[in-house]
Amino acid sequence: MRVVVLYSGGKDSNYALYWALRKGFEVKYLLSMVSERDDSYMYHVPNIHLTELQARAAGIPLVKGFTSGEKEKEVEDMKAVIEGLRVDGIVAGALASEYQKERVEGIAGELGLKSFAPAWHRDPIDYMRELTGIFDIVVVGVSAYGLDERWLGRRVDERAIEELVRLHERYGVHPAGEGGEFETFVRDAPFFRARVVFDEVVKKWDGPSYSGVLEVTRAHLEPKEAQLSKGG
Amino acid sequence: MRVVVLYSGGKDSNYALYWALRKGFEVKYLLSMVSERDDSYMYHVPNIHLTELQARAAGIPLVKGFTSGEKEKEVEDMKAVIEGLRVDGIVAGALASEYQKERVEGIAGELGLKSFAPAWHRDPIDYMRELTGIFDIVVVGVSAYGLDERWLGRRVDERAIEELVRLHERYGVHPAGEGGEFETFVRDAPFFRARVVFDEVVKKWDGPSYSGVLEVTRAHLEPKEAQLSKGG
Repeated sequence: MRVVVLYSGGKDSNYALYWALRKGFEVKYLLSMVSERDDSYMYHVPNIHLTELQARAAGIPLVKGFTSGEKEKEVEDMKAVIEGLRVDGIVAGALASEYQKERVEGIAGELGLKSFAPAWHRDPIDYMRELTGIFDIVVVGVSAYGLDERWLGRRVDERAIEELVRLHERYGVHPAGEGGEFETFVRDAPFFRARVVFDEVVKKWDGPSYSGVLEVTRAHLEPKEAQLSKGG
Repeated sequence: MRVVVLYSGGKDSNYALYWALRKGFEVKYLLSMVSERDDSYMYHVPNIHLTELQARAAGIPLVKGFTSGEKEKEVEDMKAVIEGLRVDGIVAGALASEYQKERVEGIAGELGLKSFAPAWHRDPIDYMRELTGIFDIVVVGVSAYGLDERWLGRRVDERAIEELVRLHERYGVHPAGEGGEFETFVRDAPFFRARVVFDEVVKKWDGPSYSGVLEVTRAHLEPKEAQLSKGG
């Protein structure tokens, strides 16, 4: 099974990639769709480029598709990009979003491909615990009452999950951020040959909207072989 | 004819793309191979990311492939990336490099694809004159005795070509930079919906080696519709 994995660099797309690789699928490409409505239209919004470091660390070619950002056009644009790939399936990190899942299934159906959503309807807390055991995850965006500036740049570990559970009970924050409450970035994964190291970050916090982003202005890849040889 | 265009963002790959589009080819993807030996392994060497702005301006998906940078491995790595694309041909900007042309022809042959090198063996001065009539080209790297710091960031226009001709006669500099004497970046092309604007650049010059680079640390896309409406 040759597949393309929809890839944004966060925890869910890395889980989709992890699952596909463990399943023995040949992951031919990672696909990131870039929307022209995003601030990333400006080159100096740098985080979008970090997916390239991750793709490089994974050694898997990265396809960047472009879309105007109108909802229906986005599906057509993504379909046009995938149509040109010699793959048999699409793997997506969809967890609870019906829209996202149906969109991918629709494209797969029209192109005669299989579609996979390995995290679909997982219990969010179990899922988060599994993820923290596999990846080095950091919060790079926050947008929910109850989450504050201190979450920006925070590593997602057991303590963070416990807090998310409390924030869920108190404010209804989805523990896996499925409602857009927070965005994550995966700095290390078992299938990375090198880990992403943040050299310079800028926290941008907007108090009134309870939202903020961690802008990574400098980062580099640190090969992991060096670590292994230290251990051996 | 569905094709992939090998794309680095400079004048030759943009000419290859221009030629393919004029020919009526369907350009499904641009392909950039990133070598792990490059300084671009560090995320803060920013120019490599500028190809993404260009691809976005052209509205054509960009595939980034990764290679260790060993010469033979590079061919295998590029072949593996192209093998997964549903295309009938490869278009490359090769001008005079036998190695580059043979490499692409070899991959095309093994994959049963056609290969095109529209600039192959063009007279370099005629070619440069044609390019300056089509594109907004700027010098972003220099590495030759006779070329100095003032070339970094310089627009390639008729006066620049005249100087290159004199430098060719005096020092043997190839007028199209085929020997690596200079690197270019295309900020605007007829097929760009927006032009690339450099907001912040850093000139890095190394006197003893007669070489330098223009690092673009901030850039953005400026839509061209605004310009058109001004004129109408």
